[in-house]
Amino acid sequence: MNSFMDKDFLLDTPTAKKLFHEYCENLPICDYHCHLSPKEIYENEAPADISQLWLSGDHYKWRAMRSCGVSEDYCTGNRTGREKFQKFAYALQYAIGNPLYHWAHIELQKYFGIDTPLSAKTADEIYDRANEAMAKGDFRPQSLITRSNVKVICTTDDPIDDLKYHKLLKEVDGFDCQVLPSYRPDKALNANLDGFAEYINKLGEIAGVEIKSYKDVIAALLKRADYFNEVGCRISDQSFDYVPFTIADDDEIEAIFTRAMKGEALTQAEVDAYRTKIMLALGEKYHELGWAMEIHIGAMRNNNTAMFKKLGADVGFDSIGDHNIAHTLSRFLDALNVKGKLPKTILFNLNNKDNVVLATMLGNFQSDEAESKIQFGPAWWFLDTMDGMTDQMKALGNLGILGKFVGMETDSRSFTSYGRHDYFRRILCALIGRWVEDGWYANDEEILAEIVQGISYNNAMKYFNF
Amino acid sequence: MNSFMDKDFLLDTPTAKKLFHEYCENLPICDYHCHLSPKEIYENEAPADISQLWLSGDHYKWRAMRSCGVSEDYCTGNRTGREKFQKFAYALQYAIGNPLYHWAHIELQKYFGIDTPLSAKTADEIYDRANEAMAKGDFRPQSLITRSNVKVICTTDDPIDDLKYHKLLKEVDGFDCQVLPSYRPDKALNANLDGFAEYINKLGEIAGVEIKSYKDVIAALLKRADYFNEVGCRISDQSFDYVPFTIADDDEIEAIFTRAMKGEALTQAEVDAYRTKIMLALGEKYHELGWAMEIHIGAMRNNNTAMFKKLGADVGFDSIGDHNIAHTLSRFLDALNVKGKLPKTILFNLNNKDNVVLATMLGNFQSDEAESKIQFGPAWWFLDTMDGMTDQMKALGNLGILGKFVGMETDSRSFTSYGRHDYFRRILCALIGRWVEDGWYANDEEILAEIVQGISYNNAMKYFNF
Amino acid sequence: MNSFMDKDFLLDTPTAKKLFHEYCENLPICDYHCHLSPKEIYENEAPADISQLWLSGDHYKWRAMRSCGVSEDYCTGNRTGREKFQKFAYALQYAIGNPLYHWAHIELQKYFGIDTPLSAKTADEIYDRANEAMAKGDFRPQSLITRSNVKVICTTDDPIDDLKYHKLLKEVDGFDCQVLPSYRPDKALNANLDGFAEYINKLGEIAGVEIKSYKDVIAALLKRADYFNEVGCRISDQSFDYVPFTIADDDEIEAIFTRAMKGEALTQAEVDAYRTKIMLALGEKYHELGWAMEIHIGAMRNNNTAMFKKLGADVGFDSIGDHNIAHTLSRFLDALNVKGKLPKTILFNLNNKDNVVLATMLGNFQSDEAESKIQFGPAWWFLDTMDGMTDQMKALGNLGILGKFVGMETDSRSFTSYGRHDYFRRILCALIGRWVEDGWYANDEEILAEIVQGISYNNAMKYFNF
Repeated sequence: MNSFMDKDFLLDTPTAKKLFHEYCENLPICDYHCHLSPKEIYENEAPADISQLWLSGDHYKWRAMRSCGVSEDYCTGNRTGREKFQKFAYALQYAIGNPLYHWAHIELQKYFGIDTPLSAKTADEIYDRANEAMAKGDFRPQSLITRSNVKVICTTDDPIDDLKYHKLLKEVDGFDCQVLPSYRPDKALNANLDGFAEYINKLGEIAGVEIKSYKDVIAALLKRADYFNEVGCRISDQSFDYVPFTIADDDEIEAIFTRAMKGEALTQAEVDAYRTKIMLALGEKYHELGWAMEIHIGAMRNNNTAMFKKLGADVGFDSIGDHNIAHTLSRFLDALNVKGKLPKTILFNLNNKDNVVLATMLGNFQSDEAESKIQFGPAWWFLDTMDGMTDQMKALGNLGILGKFVGMETDSRSFTSYGRHDYFRRILCALIGRWVEDGWYANDEEILAEIVQGISYNNAMKYFNF
Repeated sequence: MNSFMDKDFLLDTPTAKKLFHEYCENLPICDYHCHLSPKEIYENEAPADISQLWLSGDHYKWRAMRSCGVSEDYCTGNRTGREKFQKFAYALQYAIGNPLYHWAHIELQKYFGIDTPLSAKTADEIYDRANEAMAKGDFRPQSLITRSNVKVICTTDDPIDDLKYHKLLKEVDGFDCQVLPSYRPDKALNANLDGFAEYINKLGEIAGVEIKSYKDVIAALLKRADYFNEVGCRISDQSFDYVPFTIADDDEIEAIFTRAMKGEALTQAEVDAYRTKIMLALGEKYHELGWAMEIHIGAMRNNNTAMFKKLGADVGFDSIGDHNIAHTLSRFLDALNVKGKLPKTILFNLNNKDNVVLATMLGNFQSDEAESKIQFGPAWWFLDTMDGMTDQMKALGNLGILGKFVGMETDSRSFTSYGRHDYFRRILCALIGRWVEDGWYANDEEILAEIVQGISYNNAMKYFNF
Repeated sequence: MNSFMDKDFLLDTPTAKKLFHEYCENLPICDYHCHLSPKEIYENEAPADISQLWLSGDHYKWRAMRSCGVSEDYCTGNRTGREKFQKFAYALQYAIGNPLYHWAHIELQKYFGIDTPLSAKTADEIYDRANEAMAKGDFRPQSLITRSNVKVICTTDDPIDDLKYHKLLKEVDGFDCQVLPSYRPDKALNANLDGFAEYINKLGEIAGVEIKSYKDVIAALLKRADYFNEVGCRISDQSFDYVPFTIADDDEIEAIFTRAMKGEALTQAEVDAYRTKIMLALGEKYHELGWAMEIHIGAMRNNNTAMFKKLGADVGFDSIGDHNIAHTLSRFLDALNVKGKLPKTILFNLNNKDNVVLATMLGNFQSDEAESKIQFGPAWWFLDTMDGMTDQMKALGNLGILGKFVGMETDSRSFTSYGRHDYFRRILCALIGRWVEDGWYANDEEILAEIVQGISYNNAMKYFNF
């Protein structure tokens, strides 16, 4: 029996151990997509205790607790830090097979120096030891980032954001990590949601564009993209149930936009037509700027109306959708490609049924503009598990070129989640190590090292031109 | 090489062996969903021979035989018991990788004391030995149930059923197993099928409700639910291609119902609107009664019209459908939840593409009403295989809380199918044993024992309040 | 660590080694579906060098190269053979986990006697050694086929083909391989594509039928089927996004056909109605002729418009679609079956989400006309990988009767791709060997040998009556 989560955790062959420990373990991190707050990084305040650090904003943990029948008081409510931690520890012991279990222990080891398995019976002891470690050590955001050897962080930002903190962060002495904005125009695309008109008007103001037509929306968005680019943005991000592709003529789009601005209800086809028009314009702009376009497909959000009304979005009531995505995605990418304007693109799926669709879609639009110009994004959110990551890499290996993969990002809201890169690299080295040990790939250390270091760090740095 | 299906079958690590043999093997069985006949249990007649026991009603076995080119004579026809058994044995030897192969051998070992592998060349010998064992032993239903250590059996019953045999079974001396009804209102929902009006009228009669409106259908169904509850029912069950959610106003539903009662054809949207209305009313009732609501999603039934006309339903001509299920399922559960009326719910999928959809849907609607109030049902029917069960548990482990899983039920029509619980527990212990041996979960025997015993038996007993 | 791709490649248990080496390795090959050119086989010209042999027509390899940022010059352009080979070798070293990596090395070993792993640094050496081997040896098509021990090749042919080369090949002395046509009527079904009317008129001419109605199309197709049958055809093949099943009356079909012949645009429902009508007529004919009907489901073709305009079809810009396929497929098969006219059928899926749909669909329509009359085709195209083949066989094993599987075909356009049968047989023996070693299937060498030899060769020869 292996020791519990020791230094060789997940590394089940000598080749895996060698590849990880000699080539990957100490590489820096390029975290090219996350939801960290640049303001929090800049303000750099120390968290009060491990419950604040772990449980104040992490919907993964709340979901696990709710799934064990723990009441909301202990999740988003006003129970004490200790009480919340006890309930989390209780839930964690039943979370066998869940990445949360591994993440928690990786973080306990890495940041707190605690090797004891966390469960209901060890909760109090670990709560005290973790808080002692925090009292003695430096758990401020910049310190955690620096200790984690993170060289690039790409946050996720609204086009109307002034990027003040990104600018300020460039001036911080001794903080050796680029914190760059990413451009996420979802609100300008969601013509069917409450608050659309208000958002669009604000966008116009900030961009200095009077918005009378959907064309003005595009003009404003492009101006903001230029501004983001100046501040260091190299990536855009969008999230869709499915990538829309509905072609309508200008008059139709104008009529749809006018109605949306009045807050009138739109059909799904109308929303799609508007979104298609905007996205085609944005895609061309991303290509012009040399940005990568990330597309996250398949989240079904805010399923629980009662809790949405109580707590808002992103609090643990989202799940995996199951739309058919292949056709419209193909048409969207082709429409840009046929004009020579398809940007570098990273496709992420939340439903694992789409692994093969995405892993083969890539091959339709590769070119010599970049090595694996169209990328299959790493296993994301609910798929960010051992099985999910392994399946994503196997799909990419089977159907595309794994060796040119840009690898992992945390997609996280937490400053201690960098252990997920460690987790990813172990899974990567285990997979490739196994293939080599089984005689399925030549045992050429030079090539293997280049591949695993590429996927761990180098490919991303090159792909994004960081 | 391991011995063929010996006492350590499937248990591939020391931890798996320990967990199974010390903690799970001898636990009782809570079979919370099956299709056994309460009448047959009550009447308790001995089967004539192994062909009657195995081959007279088992569409799994007929499918296997037909897939080997065996003619219908040997399946549902009038060949002798020996001839049918020979053909089954022939088919079984090609069924490598099929759970039928394991089920057959588990049953031969467990009930007949026969260890010889079954194939065409051993068919005659085993046929004779099995019949000898049956002649010497007691193979009546109550005896098989008792020998299998089954504490609870939940059958599947129509709301118009009088539940006579469930009542009678309570009075049987020396039969220490609760046989409880489950409430399955499919016929009242299938407004598009032949015989709907006739069924609805019968429902009205039995409930003592004059049925003029769909509202009377609801009233009758609720009365029958109360009756079922009195007789010990704690579970309802429904089967859908996809869970419907189409909202229409009362007048529309009334018009649809009126047309259905005249036997007129309905569109799918109309059927869905009617079903949605009824199901929302039933869901509230289930919540009021504290029942669990089982929903089986994705069977495509009676595909072979010629054989349906010849033999009717449930004879081996069903397969796996592939509807998109996430959106309407979410809306249905939310509609109940927003009113505080969502019952305990168990979601079953027949298409493994839906594993991740269901395993994440759960998390949207958990609450402190129960530990894992919304459950991911065990791998069902076609998925009730080693791969299917492992995948379901991995999905639940990755995406939810495996430790609170209510575990296995047989879904069976056979009195010797309790070996499937043994099969399930071995797969469970193998999975968890592997995780512990690999250092992925802490080796804490107390916690592990609680988890595997919970999933094997205790969680279900607690969840259903048996 | 295992040696790299040695004689026991993929064979990870003693049973696997025994089954492969003693029973499967030296069996002949029945390649019942491929895209080889009968003209090229007949003309039997030696390729100029390994780049011509490997890189002049293989879209798998071009895709891999493009995915590494290699420019089109090196794929379909006019770079030298050496330059192209260098770029391919570069791409291959990153193709870890891709079957291309294994296929290339199997072919280097099997046909060229080269054991050195191919990568950028060994490209020049291997290019020279391979060309030396070609200069010394016989790499003409008939020789490669003979050396590969291929007994049957079924090509893929248009109904208007005169089958001249198939006839000529029967007369070639010393070439001991049946080269048979397969009947692929796609062009007569694609009423929505450019060139339909022209094609239909040509079909009429060649069949000697004046085409005024869709009924004449059917008449012409049936005549051509008779002709194909005379020349030895035993298989038809069709390719669909999803199998259509839309019923319309004769007048509607006639109107649709008339419009199609004028080049007018059709709705998808109209195309489906036309296709359904034709396919039902063809299905009956196939049954009458005793042919097997292959149906390939799920390719999304020619996604890249710019490259399609430049290079045409089948050049590496296809990917996996994700239609829902279960319902219409069931209805189509049932419509033939209810008339007693369902031919032997082989269902292939390109999206692995459909594995369970197909593997259970089979069981709906089996009969005593053949052993596993309805077959689940081997993992195809993008799924023709270790994972894909293993998953297809596990699905068939779990849900159907693996022992009656007709096994592998190459689906290839290359004369050195017979190594894929070797690859398949190794994966088969590894899978079954593992099951036996784990005690999951009885260790009965006689039965095991029959099963693996059946799946490798004998089942297909029997099923197709070759």
